[in-house]
Amino acid sequence: MENLLDGIEDILLMGPGPSCVHDKVYEALGKKSIGHLDPYFIRIMDAIKADLRTLLNTENTLTIPMSGTGSSGMEACFVNLVEKDDPVLVLINGVFGMRMQDVAQRLGATVDTLEFEWGTPVVVDAVKTKIAQKHYKIVAVVHAETSTGVKNPVAEIGALLKGSDTIYLVDAVTSLGGMEIDMDAWGIDAIYSGTQKCLSCPPGLAPLSFSNKAVAALENRKTKVPNWYLDLSLIMKYWKGATRAYHHTAPINMHYGLYQALQLILEEGPDNVYRRHLHFHHELVKGLEALGLSMLVAPASRLPMLNSVRVPEGVDEAAVRSTLLREYKIEIGAGLGPLAGKIWRIGLMGHTARQENVTRLLTALKANLF
Amino acid sequence: MENLLDGIEDILLMGPGPSCVHDKVYEALGKKSIGHLDPYFIRIMDAIKADLRTLLNTENTLTIPMSGTGSSGMEACFVNLVEKDDPVLVLINGVFGMRMQDVAQRLGATVDTLEFEWGTPVVVDAVKTKIAQKHYKIVAVVHAETSTGVKNPVAEIGALLKGSDTIYLVDAVTSLGGMEIDMDAWGIDAIYSGTQKCLSCPPGLAPLSFSNKAVAALENRKTKVPNWYLDLSLIMKYWKGATRAYHHTAPINMHYGLYQALQLILEEGPDNVYRRHLHFHHELVKGLEALGLSMLVAPASRLPMLNSVRVPEGVDEAAVRSTLLREYKIEIGAGLGPLAGKIWRIGLMGHTARQENVTRLLTALKANLF
Repeated sequence: MENLLDGIEDILLMGPGPSCVHDKVYEALGKKSIGHLDPYFIRIMDAIKADLRTLLNTENTLTIPMSGTGSSGMEACFVNLVEKDDPVLVLINGVFGMRMQDVAQRLGATVDTLEFEWGTPVVVDAVKTKIAQKHYKIVAVVHAETSTGVKNPVAEIGALLKGSDTIYLVDAVTSLGGMEIDMDAWGIDAIYSGTQKCLSCPPGLAPLSFSNKAVAALENRKTKVPNWYLDLSLIMKYWKGATRAYHHTAPINMHYGLYQALQLILEEGPDNVYRRHLHFHHELVKGLEALGLSMLVAPASRLPMLNSVRVPEGVDEAAVRSTLLREYKIEIGAGLGPLAGKIWRIGLMGHTARQENVTRLLTALKANLF
Repeated sequence: MENLLDGIEDILLMGPGPSCVHDKVYEALGKKSIGHLDPYFIRIMDAIKADLRTLLNTENTLTIPMSGTGSSGMEACFVNLVEKDDPVLVLINGVFGMRMQDVAQRLGATVDTLEFEWGTPVVVDAVKTKIAQKHYKIVAVVHAETSTGVKNPVAEIGALLKGSDTIYLVDAVTSLGGMEIDMDAWGIDAIYSGTQKCLSCPPGLAPLSFSNKAVAALENRKTKVPNWYLDLSLIMKYWKGATRAYHHTAPINMHYGLYQALQLILEEGPDNVYRRHLHFHHELVKGLEALGLSMLVAPASRLPMLNSVRVPEGVDEAAVRSTLLREYKIEIGAGLGPLAGKIWRIGLMGHTARQENVTRLLTALKANLF
């Protein structure tokens, strides 16, 4: 019988995620499965919780990976915190802000939005004005907007909300592991991420953390969480305490992968990892500009790990991506929504952010564009 | 830095799942990640769909793995099919029937139940009477009740519902890959499973299939699915058609594992696999009875892959499990709910269902109990 797995090629993953994975993480994924209630697995769970707290700069007890991809983290944050008719403000400047709006509306929230041009950041003063006009239970924003390459001013928005009872909810899918996140200092109450971006682990888990304020909101709900699978009040009983209650079977081997990916980041040192992302981002931008290409986002708001480049006039962007993938074994991403056809999205996430990858992509682009 | 992964032991997994994993599946998990929109990954997705259809004996187009563990499959079936106040009948004779009730109630369904003693099967005549009294949008039952080791009469209940517009929803978490499932012939409209039982892949994905009737119910909803992450109307656009629309990033490496696990079953031949389960189930029961132990479930309703054994009077069941795990490197499961402390649950799932494992467990039990 033909086995398709034998034909998997070694692709340099420079799209918007998944990113390149260290061999040690692949090895981790293939370690022997043990039971989800095995005391040794619980030690691994506890280590993952501690490592996530370190990386997020938080003391939050409820800091765990959810059993799904990054989007399940978004779903989990909203479904645990939103009750029908709750007023929610979503700050939107890309696909993932729009997704937050959709998720919250489906759950019955009354969602207001503030929208900003795709490719530009959220304007803090606009948020200040909006929250002065109306009280929101939740204010939600994407830290690193993967669809545009824009970094939003998460710390500054957090400063506006300090002292209020509003829950501050942040999407850190693409930022975690690639740039500083200071959850407690920035006043973030609920955060989620994914494994397949700067953590450089294959997709499948969604790290999540809730502050005491968010946990209190969960505990004071008038109605049950309308999602058994993602109900954190049940899941907590599996992830903390002396005796662990079975909720659902945790994705054992994915946890091995995440554990190893976190170890690699902590061994290199988070600050060194962030500097490495920034350094190769600058190298990449320099190289792209030397090829005559221009970046979508203004320098002050650029993400190091997601570089959006304008497609030059007259170039068939899909053909370039296809050639890069087929002939050069390099994957880059297309634009989404209003930016479809207009930009490429080049990822420098986690293990991908290295000199040889930058050089290889620039060489391939040069050969194909000119 | 200490690496906990170095201390993972090779445990014989004879609990209620996860089960033992074939080396080829571990290898598959560690293959290089490629992009979730890479044409080669789409080939792998298509092969998984085809293999799942073969194993389920269905022609359903919508036959895919959900990006979560088995319980996310349960959540997905209900959240896509239930709207507020929909009448739902759940047949309950264990933990997983109770979970279905909880899931459906959280989604606003009006849930009626028929309950049967744990350790005994659903009685078909009782279902017949119940559905004659009231029209249900959904009738739901667990095929293999993992909490008790009981096989429910899924084909017979399906026969009662034939020709009606009721959606027949079946939990096949523990049955798929270990016993015959004839989805189309039995009239099942919505089914879900998990990878970590008889498919012998680590946990992390939930195979799911919807009949045309179930898809029509989804398409005719009056309200959006109140769960963006599990909305099958969106997910279908990623899993079928000539162009695939990004929904969420699929758990790439978990799909490699599932692909390989399905290949192993199809290579051995599903009927051979089911016979192997049944054969070693009989061997195990014979051995347990020779030790003076007795089974919870009557022979006609016993599952081959989940064997519930009564704990003998005066035996500390937790101490036995702990000794088996620590000294013999064998995991077996405890009882749940009303059966806690009263039974052990011994899994013979997928790759675990082999002579050497039966022998090793019986030897260890003998040494510890007598």
